[in-house]
Amino acid sequence: MRAVVLHAPGDVRVENVEMPEIVEPSDAVIRVTATCVCGSDLWPYRGAEEVNGPTRMGHEYVGVVEQVGQDVRTVRVGDLVVGSFVASDNACEICRAGYQSRCVHQVMMGAIGTQAEYARIPLADGTLVRVPGEPTPEQIRGLLAASDVLGTGWFAAVAAQAGPGKTVAVVGDGAVGLLGVLAARRLGAERVVAMSRHADRQALAKRFGATDIVTERGDAGVARIRELTDGHGAHSTIEAVGTQESMLQAIRATRPGGHVGYVGVAHGVELDGLELFFATVNLLGGPAPVRRLLPELIDLIMTHQIDPGLVFDLTLPLDRAAEGYRAMDERRATKVLLTL
Amino acid sequence: MRAVVLHAPGDVRVENVEMPEIVEPSDAVIRVTATCVCGSDLWPYRGAEEVNGPTRMGHEYVGVVEQVGQDVRTVRVGDLVVGSFVASDNACEICRAGYQSRCVHQVMMGAIGTQAEYARIPLADGTLVRVPGEPTPEQIRGLLAASDVLGTGWFAAVAAQAGPGKTVAVVGDGAVGLLGVLAARRLGAERVVAMSRHADRQALAKRFGATDIVTERGDAGVARIRELTDGHGAHSTIEAVGTQESMLQAIRATRPGGHVGYVGVAHGVELDGLELFFATVNLLGGPAPVRRLLPELIDLIMTHQIDPGLVFDLTLPLDRAAEGYRAMDERRATKVLLTL
Repeated sequence: MRAVVLHAPGDVRVENVEMPEIVEPSDAVIRVTATCVCGSDLWPYRGAEEVNGPTRMGHEYVGVVEQVGQDVRTVRVGDLVVGSFVASDNACEICRAGYQSRCVHQVMMGAIGTQAEYARIPLADGTLVRVPGEPTPEQIRGLLAASDVLGTGWFAAVAAQAGPGKTVAVVGDGAVGLLGVLAARRLGAERVVAMSRHADRQALAKRFGATDIVTERGDAGVARIRELTDGHGAHSTIEAVGTQESMLQAIRATRPGGHVGYVGVAHGVELDGLELFFATVNLLGGPAPVRRLLPELIDLIMTHQIDPGLVFDLTLPLDRAAEGYRAMDERRATKVLLTL
Repeated sequence: MRAVVLHAPGDVRVENVEMPEIVEPSDAVIRVTATCVCGSDLWPYRGAEEVNGPTRMGHEYVGVVEQVGQDVRTVRVGDLVVGSFVASDNACEICRAGYQSRCVHQVMMGAIGTQAEYARIPLADGTLVRVPGEPTPEQIRGLLAASDVLGTGWFAAVAAQAGPGKTVAVVGDGAVGLLGVLAARRLGAERVVAMSRHADRQALAKRFGATDIVTERGDAGVARIRELTDGHGAHSTIEAVGTQESMLQAIRATRPGGHVGYVGVAHGVELDGLELFFATVNLLGGPAPVRRLLPELIDLIMTHQIDPGLVFDLTLPLDRAAEGYRAMDERRATKVLLTL
């Protein structure tokens, strides 16, 4: 089968690899019907994470179940399914508390690689969720977004306690930040401030429900958020970048007692304990427990209440994955969908 | 009047200073009836914080109202009162959200100095709480603890979401940590693990409701907490020290999705963003909003439901404050009460 393989920074190829097989009785194998390129795939692509020899890529997926191991009970051959970017048993104490992305048996799907025609899904019962009905092409794109980028933006909004009466600031206008805007608004936030200086992303943020746009960054961005909130800062801030500047911007834009939900994979971030102490904000972040959110997100998509698939602004066949990586790296595309 | 003045690291003197007066119409002046030495007073005493010339000390107090400004409505001359170590208007948006320690008009009482015969209390209506009835000497000690050390331990337990069914780990066996044990137990925690290697503090932790004692620190301490919790880590962890080691110990001892309440004033602490990201724990800390908690704490003390004054293990007259600082610095005393 065909699969995306990263050979070195900047060197993405689509190659023939072995077909995946059932290894554990709790596995399923799916035929991938849509996959995509994640902002986090750019870290190794840019050499910011080490690449040790040829590496399979991708952790987002919608697909059809091809094969199931003998212990699999909740999905059947032929089912259309979505799953999280972290496979989980959805049964351990950590999963039951809603943190499936830190399941005691977790398997990072990125280590398997879903930018491929087929993929083995470990812990299929705890990972995959069946999609009811017959999704339209728009809905397929939305379901694919749910696999990571929507689930991640949603978790950030929940972690930031976005809700009625709240002003939510969103740091980062990539796909996760934009879907954080959508999530914050769906969760009832009164005011959602998107921090973006790109006209196309501002437009999408507004379509997703942003009430205000702030183009300033860093200290100037923080000052603008304070101006908009009687000097107090936002009640809730979503951090969706993962740099030192974005993390400090998020913390400093939040009022005492407010909440920061951070989902940008922090690279080179160091937080000063004393600054954090006097900020007196609630911090919650990490890999999003997408599995917790999937049933609700699938329902919202399948009932046409949200259209998160709008974040995909470039669609290419799997064989042209290298072009997709290049477009995202050069910020010509927000999020690239790969068709099969 | 007599007051404690720090002249240089290690050089505490009790001197004659000017009587405080009403400055703002919202001020009160109290006659201090009990005050004490805080762990945080040791930072400048040890030279870990700069001392710029003679500095008044102390921010904890129980007292009797002597004088009130013309705008003061909720306390009257002759009232026995307790207040927080941060004066607050208890009316601004931040106060109303329960974060009075970050009031937009906050005044740190340490900048005024309550280790003295009298003290000016800014924003008296928002800061002071009247004590009903006639407290016993034990209750006076408890009320004094409520002014900071009990309120701080209690806030840490609330921030760590200690409650029924939870296992709470407490890092730090100073007065705040010990009262964090008491708070966690009162809030309904099933299991409270005090991390201490001192027999006298272990005994007090048990008296306050600790169910387990762990003597190991650092990685070994984390490993013990994991052993006690099926490998998952504590649901809730109270950090009551403020060093790099204690902060990492607290974060690493907590399960994904768990909560860390940190109230040790962080000195030289740097948190790595990527470690924090993959820890996936809720973090909340800072100067405790004692004013939020005071009515409940006063009630618990005055109805003999808690006896937090037990943390005071050395009582000296104000004039012998220097001995008290020395005893705490040398860890011969956990918490020193100064009588007037």
